[in-house]
Amino acid sequence: MNMENLKWDSQGLIPAIVQDATTKEVLTLAYMNRTSLEKSIETRETWFYSRSRQELWHKGATSGNTQKIVEMKLDCDRDAIVLLVQPAGPACHTGAISCFSERILEEE
Amino acid sequence: MNMENLKWDSQGLIPAIVQDATTKEVLTLAYMNRTSLEKSIETRETWFYSRSRQELWHKGATSGNTQKIVEMKLDCDRDAIVLLVQPAGPACHTGAISCFSERILEEE
Repeated sequence: MNMENLKWDSQGLIPAIVQDATTKEVLTLAYMNRTSLEKSIETRETWFYSRSRQELWHKGATSGNTQKIVEMKLDCDRDAIVLLVQPAGPACHTGAISCFSERILEEE
Repeated sequence: MNMENLKWDSQGLIPAIVQDATTKEVLTLAYMNRTSLEKSIETRETWFYSRSRQELWHKGATSGNTQKIVEMKLDCDRDAIVLLVQPAGPACHTGAISCFSERILEEE
């Protein structure tokens, strides 16, 4: 992949939607810089850039809950990525399978 | 929902992952400001904020490809939303079902 073709934002990041390859549940939205994308492709595990800690972050490095990358897809604007993964454990630091666990719309 | 609890970015936006409620395919990543989120909740159809055109945008207003919102979920950091939708047509302006149609990782 030619990384020059990607539209990195003003901070050099691109949003990455992480989706369970089997259940298709969206697990988290994280951000990648060029190095984390390169390391993700090289290792086939997810690496992100933590905006709060301002550092490269290998998902699961401390928790063991790594995410094996099955597929990566780029959108038509080339400014967002979908990662289909096989997670070794919960994606969320709360212990939840997905970070998206709070429903904010009531049933009609 | 108390919108004060959401973490809007420096431009007053929050990223919204749009996912097909039936197939679970991720269709697009778009951005909402407070007005578009309010209108989405009120109408049960997706409204976004176009960063390039800098205007409120009712998805499908011109194309007819509206998206009926089935469920909305907020993440643990309260800075990203997942919308589960029933789309009336393709999500992408290219005519593709999903904006994420370019594979960027080869099979091993």
